[in-house]
Amino acid sequence: MTHPRLSLNQATIKYADLDTALRVTADAGYQSVGLWREPVQEVGLDAAAAMIRDSGLRVSSMCRGGFFTPLEGPERRRAIDDNRRAIEETARVTDAAADGSRAVLVLVAGGLPGGSRDLIGARERVGEALAELVEPAQAAGVQLAIEPLHPMYVSDRAVVSTLGQALDIAEPFPAEAVGVVVDTFHIWWDPDVLAQVARAGAAGRIASYQVCDWATPLPADVLLSRHYPGDGVIDFAPLTRAVTDAGYTGDVEVEIFNQEIWDTDAATAAARTATAFDTAVAPHLS
Amino acid sequence: MTHPRLSLNQATIKYADLDTALRVTADAGYQSVGLWREPVQEVGLDAAAAMIRDSGLRVSSMCRGGFFTPLEGPERRRAIDDNRRAIEETARVTDAAADGSRAVLVLVAGGLPGGSRDLIGARERVGEALAELVEPAQAAGVQLAIEPLHPMYVSDRAVVSTLGQALDIAEPFPAEAVGVVVDTFHIWWDPDVLAQVARAGAAGRIASYQVCDWATPLPADVLLSRHYPGDGVIDFAPLTRAVTDAGYTGDVEVEIFNQEIWDTDAATAAARTATAFDTAVAPHLS
Repeated sequence: MTHPRLSLNQATIKYADLDTALRVTADAGYQSVGLWREPVQEVGLDAAAAMIRDSGLRVSSMCRGGFFTPLEGPERRRAIDDNRRAIEETARVTDAAADGSRAVLVLVAGGLPGGSRDLIGARERVGEALAELVEPAQAAGVQLAIEPLHPMYVSDRAVVSTLGQALDIAEPFPAEAVGVVVDTFHIWWDPDVLAQVARAGAAGRIASYQVCDWATPLPADVLLSRHYPGDGVIDFAPLTRAVTDAGYTGDVEVEIFNQEIWDTDAATAAARTATAFDTAVAPHLS
Repeated sequence: MTHPRLSLNQATIKYADLDTALRVTADAGYQSVGLWREPVQEVGLDAAAAMIRDSGLRVSSMCRGGFFTPLEGPERRRAIDDNRRAIEETARVTDAAADGSRAVLVLVAGGLPGGSRDLIGARERVGEALAELVEPAQAAGVQLAIEPLHPMYVSDRAVVSTLGQALDIAEPFPAEAVGVVVDTFHIWWDPDVLAQVARAGAAGRIASYQVCDWATPLPADVLLSRHYPGDGVIDFAPLTRAVTDAGYTGDVEVEIFNQEIWDTDAATAAARTATAFDTAVAPHLS
């Protein structure tokens, strides 16, 4: 049996379809799963909702919306519309899932638009997009969760780089509509991280706590540089205690992008994830 | 003729020995050069000083000291001793160089010691090392310059990751003894960067301004991911204006680690650097 708060983010077993992912997750003793939209869309929302209900699992979050940095125009409108759909999908799958699910839509901000060097402007457009999405999120009972990504992704993935910056962007909006993701991989290096975790908790904005590890050398594709907790250099004790002390009582996701892990059998990866979590993270969850 | 404040950091023409580097730099119309210890040590300090005097160039900085994160013991003592030697070398070459030289020793903090996950402890040991080196630095008239490195290097190169953190570490010490390096590549992503540049200037701690560009995808070796100014996505206007507004009037170094640039002829790289600087950076120097 795995830790009762452990959730397997579907990205960790990327090549499993929804049916397989839910089965593998439940069979490995998890009570919770973090979903991605693509495998849900692959089977259709109705079928996905039924499969999730049948699985008996909680849903801890839905990945992902965002990509808010295009300048005003058709591309930006498509992004906003896609986020409206993502909010509906999040509400629907969470509603079908077991009690204790979190209707959380993880947002990746997006990088600099092609040819642009205006980082400050791109960051402002993230807040402007949220202003459009807060009302539909509140209507659907979904919390939008801004995920700061490691600064090495700032130009091509996410112009939101620190927890403090994510909280600054969230601040104008109600906490039940806009929160933040605390992901160890992205924020462990930040000298200000413990204070910002406390700030996030005090504001009621910790929407999700995700854990995986950092190790060097980084692989050729730095997107795939995450590791099982304990296989790298992150000290999960102070971060996990800070999240706990900040009042977060929800599920804890393990989300790993790593080609070698993707190439292992999904059941093996699920079991290995649980062992890693139980060793490196669970002891620090009070 | 290149911009009067432009300095060629020797790392940009890594394969040139000191004699070649000085000649190439002067021939390309530069008035200033940033030196590295290894090529200086290769010819010996006396010969290096004579060569620098003969070149007529200013020295804008010396790279590098630091690597302050080992736990107390012989390795840490060797690091401290090496930094004492680096201070002497910096004073000596700067003394031999043309008027307007800056006796600045660039410090790279060092990463986590092997097997350690104690990032907070490693960061504390940086300040403790500085406390030992301030007196010899002041005696030699050398400013130690803490360089925050991009957070992607935090575990294996430098536990100092932001300008704000570098300034916090510098704060207990006199500004003439401990400053910071503002390097666009390392800090451009930081949402707080402009405020921290202003803070650094107000404290009299901007020891060096270094410029190069960021582009993705990152190469397999992320240490070699720097580009000529203008070849990437950094907007040099606000950063350069902030450094200028903060009162920095010294030389501006171009320091690029890039295998392709290293593989070009040194004179070509020096000329290309000057053109890139004159286009992307110089217009923003008031």
